Amino acid sequence: MMHIVLAESEIELVPDKIKNHPAIKSENELLDATLHHSAMKNIEDAYRRGRPDIIHFFLNNVMESVLNKKGMLSTYIHTRNDELIHIKPETRIIKNYNRFKGLFSKLLMEKAVPENTPLMWVENKSMEEFLSEMPHKKIFFSRRGKRIRIHELGDIMNEDVVIVIGGFPYGYFSESYVSMADEIVSIGDEALTAWIVAMEAIVAYENVLKF
Amino acid sequence: MMHIVLAESEIELVPDKIKNHPAIKSENELLDATLHHSAMKNIEDAYRRGRPDIIHFFLNNVMESVLNKKGMLSTYIHTRNDELIHIKPETRIIKNYNRFKGLFSKLLMEKAVPENTPLMWVENKSMEEFLSEMPHKKIFFSRRGKRIRIHELGDIMNEDVVIVIGGFPYGYFSESYVSMADEIVSIGDEALTAWIVAMEAIVAYENVLKF
Repeated sequence: MMHIVLAESEIELVPDKIKNHPAIKSENELLDATLHHSAMKNIEDAYRRGRPDIIHFFLNNVMESVLNKKGMLSTYIHTRNDELIHIKPETRIIKNYNRFKGLFSKLLMEKAVPENTPLMWVENKSMEEFLSEMPHKKIFFSRRGKRIRIHELGDIMNEDVVIVIGGFPYGYFSESYVSMADEIVSIGDEALTAWIVAMEAIVAYENVLKF
Repeated sequence: MMHIVLAESEIELVPDKIKNHPAIKSENELLDATLHHSAMKNIEDAYRRGRPDIIHFFLNNVMESVLNKKGMLSTYIHTRNDELIHIKPETRIIKNYNRFKGLFSKLLMEKAVPENTPLMWVENKSMEEFLSEMPHKKIFFSRRGKRIRIHELGDIMNEDVVIVIGGFPYGYFSESYVSMADEIVSIGDEALTAWIVAMEAIVAYENVLKF
């Protein structure tokens, strides 16, 4: 089984501090840097926050992957506010971006969707807590990691493996949990998006399993 | 070099026939099944048309791939109206879906963007014409193809290879060019999205090249 987690993802409801800014249409919406750029000037880490698009691309890759369809992938989204979103493998991710954002704002407010038999639910959990509960090999992908060739990526994967990818557009993992990695690897000379790194890891693992 | 083409993609301007329907806000917008469902009832092939989201996911995968960043991928979008969109490898695909649609409607109208030194341009060309100009091995991905294992996908790829993937949500390639395939393969037991198939082909080829 592969466990894949998008860590410190930049998905959150509009922070209280800027709820009254004219760029914010509703206080129940997700922060989105494309729309709320002017409102975000005075919040901390503004350069990297408000990126639900990264989560959207990531989920539309990992949940549609052959590995997930074979039931061998579990997927988690960890957020900057230490929420851990669990997503059942059979969940169909909404393709339309605006509707996707609507559903995820509901999820962050109500902590589970759909209400009765949830496909996605939110737990308050830090990366340290999550990783300490995972008894498997943990591989982090980071530009600061050891450079490894893509065709050799399968060689470092165990049958049970945890893949950690950053859900932020700039910067690095927090120091608080990066020491929990068994390996930190880099697969590109340039910066790669989270959803491409995810597919490289998933396809490497599919090859290990002789799919 | 890998040449990848999304064939018969369901991207088009709003057809004349339905331009006056109240669901259509502007006659210069792309047809989008999510927004224009009610207007599309009386057009041919309505069940599969109006899917710019497929092109958006596809391009945000292939253009962000390691293979493309290494300059070893050329990418084409062929449309249901026999337009062939050429995309320079250095093109940055817009992440925001609404802005992406705005740019692509401009591209289909003006035939090139940006105006002076285009990164993307449109040529009138059918799949038959495109494939007949390509002297390389042509591999089509289709559920009707020969079932092949993912870890053996690299074995059938030559150093120069053309990958053909359907850009439509349902159905099969037109009979007019499917006979031009050197191989038609299937990699999944269930239907896979175009952007997942693209990543499987790209990563397999990266492995052949010992990336």
